[in-house]
Amino acid sequence: MMATEPINRQVLLKSRPSGIPQAEHFEIGQGAIETPSAGQILVRNIFWSVEPAMRGWVSDVANYSEPVAIGSVMRAFSAGIVMASEHADFQPGDYVSGLFGWQDYACVDAQSVVSRPTVSERVPLATSLGVLGLNGLTAYFGLLEVGQPKSGETVVVSTAAGAVGSCVGQIARKQGCHTIGITGGAQKVDICLNEFGYNKAVDYKAASFEQDFISACADGVDVYFDNTAGNVSDVVMTKLNPGARVIVCGTASISQWDPVPVGPRVNRQLLVARARMQGILVLDYADRYDEARNELARWVADGDIRYREDVTRGVEAAPDAIAGLYRGENLGKRLIQVAELDGTAVTGG
Amino acid sequence: MMATEPINRQVLLKSRPSGIPQAEHFEIGQGAIETPSAGQILVRNIFWSVEPAMRGWVSDVANYSEPVAIGSVMRAFSAGIVMASEHADFQPGDYVSGLFGWQDYACVDAQSVVSRPTVSERVPLATSLGVLGLNGLTAYFGLLEVGQPKSGETVVVSTAAGAVGSCVGQIARKQGCHTIGITGGAQKVDICLNEFGYNKAVDYKAASFEQDFISACADGVDVYFDNTAGNVSDVVMTKLNPGARVIVCGTASISQWDPVPVGPRVNRQLLVARARMQGILVLDYADRYDEARNELARWVADGDIRYREDVTRGVEAAPDAIAGLYRGENLGKRLIQVAELDGTAVTGG
Repeated sequence: MMATEPINRQVLLKSRPSGIPQAEHFEIGQGAIETPSAGQILVRNIFWSVEPAMRGWVSDVANYSEPVAIGSVMRAFSAGIVMASEHADFQPGDYVSGLFGWQDYACVDAQSVVSRPTVSERVPLATSLGVLGLNGLTAYFGLLEVGQPKSGETVVVSTAAGAVGSCVGQIARKQGCHTIGITGGAQKVDICLNEFGYNKAVDYKAASFEQDFISACADGVDVYFDNTAGNVSDVVMTKLNPGARVIVCGTASISQWDPVPVGPRVNRQLLVARARMQGILVLDYADRYDEARNELARWVADGDIRYREDVTRGVEAAPDAIAGLYRGENLGKRLIQVAELDGTAVTGG
Repeated sequence: MMATEPINRQVLLKSRPSGIPQAEHFEIGQGAIETPSAGQILVRNIFWSVEPAMRGWVSDVANYSEPVAIGSVMRAFSAGIVMASEHADFQPGDYVSGLFGWQDYACVDAQSVVSRPTVSERVPLATSLGVLGLNGLTAYFGLLEVGQPKSGETVVVSTAAGAVGSCVGQIARKQGCHTIGITGGAQKVDICLNEFGYNKAVDYKAASFEQDFISACADGVDVYFDNTAGNVSDVVMTKLNPGARVIVCGTASISQWDPVPVGPRVNRQLLVARARMQGILVLDYADRYDEARNELARWVADGDIRYREDVTRGVEAAPDAIAGLYRGENLGKRLIQVAELDGTAVTGG
């Protein structure tokens, strides 16, 4: 008797959230496994990525990309193995990552492949979605290109233990900067100090946060890599040094952008400090991904940059996974593993 | 009988305002006329400058300079004639400008001279405090260095008819930009269009402002030179194009910074547009003033850059002059003339 026919489980966007997407906004369905035509490949996804930016991808508020359509497969970066190829550069068994969506199988144009991970014991496949994926690339370009940190400067990072933040903190330390992490809870403070090498770490959930932060950065803030916005950032903004750079990377603490929430106006702080506040979108640096990925891979292999992963097994974990990020429940890059490395389906968790 | 002994009338800071300085925060007094010692010059001020930044100079909220002390002469840029010199580079009769304060006579170190105006019919002395002074320099460096406008881009200017704004609009037009001025009232709209050459001008006092502005900038905003902050800027910020630059130059619409007023958070707009918002303080460009002043003087002499002045005669006008700026009552650079060009005192107005 034949082995069970493979199926293509998919996570579909069921309705459009007005804020953070919750489990109820998704449903699990099943799609066809297509056969690649000329120039295409069929990918068996192994890991699905979960990231804060997904909130924007499903929102119809002005954004840098079209919103995911209701009823279609959730847009997501995934990493997997080529099962069939109609493109000369790809062979079955090759590892690839790209915007393959929250589904088991993706039949895509070969040029949509974002990276071709070189997998090793020190640098496993999952890193292609985290420290060597958009998270690491965002940290790299956001900090180095937008933030332009100089040795001896103070670099503050919000969501300091997260997938982007932890990488920012470690790159900043490599640049000779004094690093201060802002994170939530004692466990994450400990990880910031002992695993990611921050010079200082402050718990934003503590009642004494404002005071703790101000004592931690007696020399002021030269670079602020901001993944949260909101109340935490309002405190950081009061300590900007002359010429400070604020990298606007994410707004994790803001649950709704429609209507736009109010907060302290920043004009005077930017004026007095002659500071700069600038948005980063990593896609703008696509032509330099290889350069950055090679450097990051070397740092990871050397043990200079550490990372954490939060891997849940099974398709069923996906619908609630984005909301969980915003609840701050993960420690490190959140991934969903839907197949073993050999391609066997993972079920449940 | 001898001519009347000259006296040194001074405008002193009487008490510290918590917001915009009003007439009641100043008093008119009289000081000594000092005799220059080695390296010093005695200046007879002819014009006093009045500028929005004076609000910051008398505030004890964090700033880029020490606040003016209670009881001392109000800090101000002035332009005048050297009366006596103990420095080889200066002769009686030379024109000079610098931070000589709101007083008739200033005895200062020669190196405190900020510029040595070359006065001509096309470029009179008063321009050294306006279009060739910090206003013009702020426009020049703010627009060109921070804003980096490119030909064909849309440049929006708030307080578009003001001393800084009018210069920004005209420099932007010289760069081949499409210029949109935001100003208050029909008369200033007319001046923006017919005198300062804006492509479009919008009245922020009109009930239809938001709609008017949005129709005026159908192609979005590439550069926003912001002198106001507040509600007007909140509208502009919703129209930023990808890669937009916002020059934070002033906050004229905000009457109080303590406590910090709230407004719509800008993070998402900066993120989606990958835009940059940056403070400008012209003093940071002091080593390039000569270069900019020469270029501006050539443009003014050629008639490429026009300017307006609002000159009041007599010391008595000074105490209310800053508040008047914030009431928007002036058309062009506000100056107080306290002496004729030959040094004779001006009294009343």
